[in-house]
Amino acid sequence: MKVMNIKLTVAYDGTDYHGFQEQRGTGFVTIQEVLEKALSKLAKQRIQVTGAGRTDSGVHAKGQVVNFKSESWPVPLDKIPLAVNALLPGDVVVLKAEKVPDEFHARFSAVKKTYVYTILNQRLPDPFTKRYALHEPRPLDDDAMNRAAQYLVGEHDFKSFQAQGTPVKTTVRKLTEASVKRDGCKLYLRFTANGFLYNMVRIMTGTLIQVGLGKIKPDDVKLILESRDRTKAGPTVPPQGLCMEKVYY
Amino acid sequence: MKVMNIKLTVAYDGTDYHGFQEQRGTGFVTIQEVLEKALSKLAKQRIQVTGAGRTDSGVHAKGQVVNFKSESWPVPLDKIPLAVNALLPGDVVVLKAEKVPDEFHARFSAVKKTYVYTILNQRLPDPFTKRYALHEPRPLDDDAMNRAAQYLVGEHDFKSFQAQGTPVKTTVRKLTEASVKRDGCKLYLRFTANGFLYNMVRIMTGTLIQVGLGKIKPDDVKLILESRDRTKAGPTVPPQGLCMEKVYY
Repeated sequence: MKVMNIKLTVAYDGTDYHGFQEQRGTGFVTIQEVLEKALSKLAKQRIQVTGAGRTDSGVHAKGQVVNFKSESWPVPLDKIPLAVNALLPGDVVVLKAEKVPDEFHARFSAVKKTYVYTILNQRLPDPFTKRYALHEPRPLDDDAMNRAAQYLVGEHDFKSFQAQGTPVKTTVRKLTEASVKRDGCKLYLRFTANGFLYNMVRIMTGTLIQVGLGKIKPDDVKLILESRDRTKAGPTVPPQGLCMEKVYY
Repeated sequence: MKVMNIKLTVAYDGTDYHGFQEQRGTGFVTIQEVLEKALSKLAKQRIQVTGAGRTDSGVHAKGQVVNFKSESWPVPLDKIPLAVNALLPGDVVVLKAEKVPDEFHARFSAVKKTYVYTILNQRLPDPFTKRYALHEPRPLDDDAMNRAAQYLVGEHDFKSFQAQGTPVKTTVRKLTEASVKRDGCKLYLRFTANGFLYNMVRIMTGTLIQVGLGKIKPDDVKLILESRDRTKAGPTVPPQGLCMEKVYY
């Protein structure tokens, strides 16, 4: 029987999950776990998925991508989203299902990814964006933040923007987009790269917030990058503002 | 000592609460309870609040109004929101504090209120609006819904749009606004009245959805209204799409 390789685009509210990746025996519920449970039930066989990226606890996704291989599949491809969603909790939603070539791998085939970090920049908190944005009551200079962000664009060693003690072959990544845009009280920080180091988006955001507060000059971001020293960069911002927006293949 | 009457404007995500009103001894947490707890802690005395409306379990508010009287108050009026918010869980937020005349009563002084019901009208569910909108995957004709809504405007006996078995002096209310507006995949149903019967907004919305699906003609809403018969109207939609938008004094 022909093995099918199926790619799913998945959106989720990560608030109540312990990140994407399955952690056997920990008792914590992950996105991967609920996806595999629903898919296995539908396929009446054990399905294991591979994700494009391992989002952390509390991090969201509008365009996470997973793939899995299966010999038989009980529903037509275009019916998969509705069929799987009926078996998923409402905070994890399959948006799209596509048949892909055998060699497609959600993580290794990805050429770049976009993450967006959202900041609510107003004096008072807002109960409706609490799960999806970082609340920063002090005024942020988004122009300065956007200027600073441009120093991050390009192929650089991002060691300053990596959580300390993370083993990785190389800390060089190519960032093709870094922008800060304001829409009313909301700030959207958008980053696209061929890959991200652990906590890289959250540390870049923490650093740009320091710029927005006037504590770091935009030009200093260049020096922080060149220092290859995590202690020079800003703090790691909390996960709830972060969203995996899109994966490119 | 002079007694102060203080009015607060409050926003909340009602998802995790058992409605606004305190229910002693039930073990369920209500908005009123967490508000009174935070205010009492701040004032170092037992504070009891009166709300403009008793929102149900899961119903939200962007502009709920409460008032309370207190002999002494430890912080200046304009500092109350920040001080109280620091003691509140993040899903309940005090937006504004004002000193009001002694005779001001959050419920009895209100002349009208606006409620908005939000519908997500797209084939697939969305994890990010799950808590704040009703998902209706079938296409809704918002023009027909808006035409139907106009029959509800005016002073009428809304008995058909009241939950059965609710004791109330009169079922006559004056609706000054009923509109259905589409913004992309979202439909906003907006109702303003001098008062609402129990479940009235949710039954009017359920009826207008039937119109949007083509199951009831817009003109039939007039007949449903005149019938004074709850069984003629549509179903009561779930609470998560409902939000108390504003209270007018």
